[in-house]
Amino acid sequence: MKAILIIGDGMADRPLKELEGKTPLEATEKPFLDELAKSGICGIIDPISPGFPPGSDVATLALLGYDALKVYTGRGALEAVGSGIEVLPTDIAFRCNFATVDKDLVVVDRRAGRIATEDAAKLTEDIQKAVSEEEFEADVLFKNTVEHRAILRLRGPELSNMVSSSDPAYVGRRVQKIMPLDDTLQAARTAKIANKLMTFFHEILKNHEVNEKRKEKGLLPANIVLFRSAGKLPDLTPLTLKYGIRPAVICALPLIRGVCKLAGMKPILVEGATGTYATNVMAKAKAAVKALESYDFVLVHVKGTDLASHDGKVSKKMEMIVKIDGLVSYILENTDPEETYIAVTADHTTSIATGEHEGDPVPIVLRGPYVRTDDVAEFGERACAKGGLGRIRGKDLMPILMNFLGKVKKYGA
Amino acid sequence: MKAILIIGDGMADRPLKELEGKTPLEATEKPFLDELAKSGICGIIDPISPGFPPGSDVATLALLGYDALKVYTGRGALEAVGSGIEVLPTDIAFRCNFATVDKDLVVVDRRAGRIATEDAAKLTEDIQKAVSEEEFEADVLFKNTVEHRAILRLRGPELSNMVSSSDPAYVGRRVQKIMPLDDTLQAARTAKIANKLMTFFHEILKNHEVNEKRKEKGLLPANIVLFRSAGKLPDLTPLTLKYGIRPAVICALPLIRGVCKLAGMKPILVEGATGTYATNVMAKAKAAVKALESYDFVLVHVKGTDLASHDGKVSKKMEMIVKIDGLVSYILENTDPEETYIAVTADHTTSIATGEHEGDPVPIVLRGPYVRTDDVAEFGERACAKGGLGRIRGKDLMPILMNFLGKVKKYGA
Repeated sequence: MKAILIIGDGMADRPLKELEGKTPLEATEKPFLDELAKSGICGIIDPISPGFPPGSDVATLALLGYDALKVYTGRGALEAVGSGIEVLPTDIAFRCNFATVDKDLVVVDRRAGRIATEDAAKLTEDIQKAVSEEEFEADVLFKNTVEHRAILRLRGPELSNMVSSSDPAYVGRRVQKIMPLDDTLQAARTAKIANKLMTFFHEILKNHEVNEKRKEKGLLPANIVLFRSAGKLPDLTPLTLKYGIRPAVICALPLIRGVCKLAGMKPILVEGATGTYATNVMAKAKAAVKALESYDFVLVHVKGTDLASHDGKVSKKMEMIVKIDGLVSYILENTDPEETYIAVTADHTTSIATGEHEGDPVPIVLRGPYVRTDDVAEFGERACAKGGLGRIRGKDLMPILMNFLGKVKKYGA
Repeated sequence: MKAILIIGDGMADRPLKELEGKTPLEATEKPFLDELAKSGICGIIDPISPGFPPGSDVATLALLGYDALKVYTGRGALEAVGSGIEVLPTDIAFRCNFATVDKDLVVVDRRAGRIATEDAAKLTEDIQKAVSEEEFEADVLFKNTVEHRAILRLRGPELSNMVSSSDPAYVGRRVQKIMPLDDTLQAARTAKIANKLMTFFHEILKNHEVNEKRKEKGLLPANIVLFRSAGKLPDLTPLTLKYGIRPAVICALPLIRGVCKLAGMKPILVEGATGTYATNVMAKAKAAVKALESYDFVLVHVKGTDLASHDGKVSKKMEMIVKIDGLVSYILENTDPEETYIAVTADHTTSIATGEHEGDPVPIVLRGPYVRTDDVAEFGERACAKGGLGRIRGKDLMPILMNFLGKVKKYGA
């Protein structure tokens, strides 16, 4: 027995006036997702608990069976791991943004005009070079990833992830001083190092030739790096140990890939899987089916539904749902129904109306040889609420799936 | 107000192809269970949590309202208490099997050909006699119960239940050395004593005249005793104290009877109640109705449904469900509906298809004067999932029942 879990990021939503009171999922024609609902068991999931809006990292930890609020130790380290950067248990990592500030350090653009990866790479190279020649009481690794995104890793003794961000989160606000978030010497020390690095990076960037050229072209200069979401490695028992399975993940998003890697899952890189609207969902579907030959449990993550919600784009969200329906169609056609459990859910609700993650539950459908099918005939937030699984928590999903795979040990006699 | 709780051991199941996708419960004609569903409130219960397959001892602890994973301390002591053997808080008890090994200590039969109780008793007598003349750093009590089953109790200072079993669990494997399961001196000491006893018992048994006679008759010799499931007394607040009730239990199974005794319940022995397919369910029903004269809460446990599932016998399981339906019929006819709450559930799902305890939820029906009846008209896994109780946890059941009996105190003002 094997299992595929498909997570549509932020796929669940609230009723929308422009859809005559339907959610995007309810308003979209998605015959294969509905087919799953008809032949499976449905329900709704509170990723953490009712009314609680989780980030995708926290929600994914829960859907993988972890006590997410206990194990979560910040985004930085997860995204670093997902970006292929080594993080040791004593390291601290920040997720960083190349950004644009005016001369008073007021933020003009939090993404430096979504700077091209090429420009960011050149700036990064010079920052790393300069940093290596200086002393910062910690080893510093700075690495850009895609566009404005970068990772800062601090390595050394006595560091803490309990420090605030320098990102003020809104345009028009001044860059924040990084502050310790608890009374430890480690947090004070880490904040001091981070603030020193913030200034040091800014000095390198503000008159950098790359930025001069950008200004000439009418582009925003990347004259500062904002440090966000300090994190350290979470303490996770890998799924391999917990259930004795071989798990894999197909996900273009470094943050979620990082979570999955730390959960012991093998990341499978798929060409054309980009984490954007343009992602090649069918390539993911094919990779997932192929992965089932070597792995017991394959997670397929699709980001676009969440992007569309944050961008407030109803039709984009519906298009992404159609793509996920295609993914399901391919998986249904190319797996043995007697040997495969297929589950589809969302990691959280993202409301088109508010543009935010919300605490409403998400629908779940599970199809497989031994499930107690119910009479739900449609995959949607409200239809699934009437399903045989009832209302469960995110961390219940993995034990349910693993039990069907015969991987949960009986306790007691 | 009084309450009867009927537990069909492993009665819940998964859909079966040979029953056209129904479960045994769904496929069986059981008018009285359905009548209960029609006139009561239904739901589904996760004995521990979704996807978690419990043993019957752990599940019964949960259904009696305890935090089962916290209080469970191993099967041995529970079964000893249920077999009428005194266990003190500092004692350790093993559940034992008379078994057959070859000369290399490889297990040939884990039950010595299901040795007759009479033969086991003779062997036990000689073992106990020899043990009494020897020094083992602990007082040793060895007592056979039914057929190949026996209990070994160790009494003395510095003992621990954190030791492994000598039973390799499968035929064809060598008897295991008992190992400490933690770093304490107590565990090391207990393992040492147990290993010494294993050898000592084997020496007595291997050329014992009972075994010589068995071999002559073509029966397997009981030439070893396997020590399993070391346990100590769990720390349970008895139901008498917790709710101020007089509780009783009707159950032929020593393990479950032990759990109930430790929960402060009075065991009522019923002639013909055997814990097998042949059990006299009507005798149990009569005893239960009679017990209601003296007790507030009576638990009736029926084992056969679980046996049938482990044996993969669909028709046997359906027969046992019909018997339970008869039990319900008698109770309905002979109790005052204005004064009696009747609940029926299972302690866990046992799948005929896998032959194992599974983590799927179990159905529950509760009938009584003040329940909020729903429109479920059938007692089955899927029908009950639509019931008014929704999806609850095993440990929620007792407070619900006791609240209807007026036995749960308000907390707060």
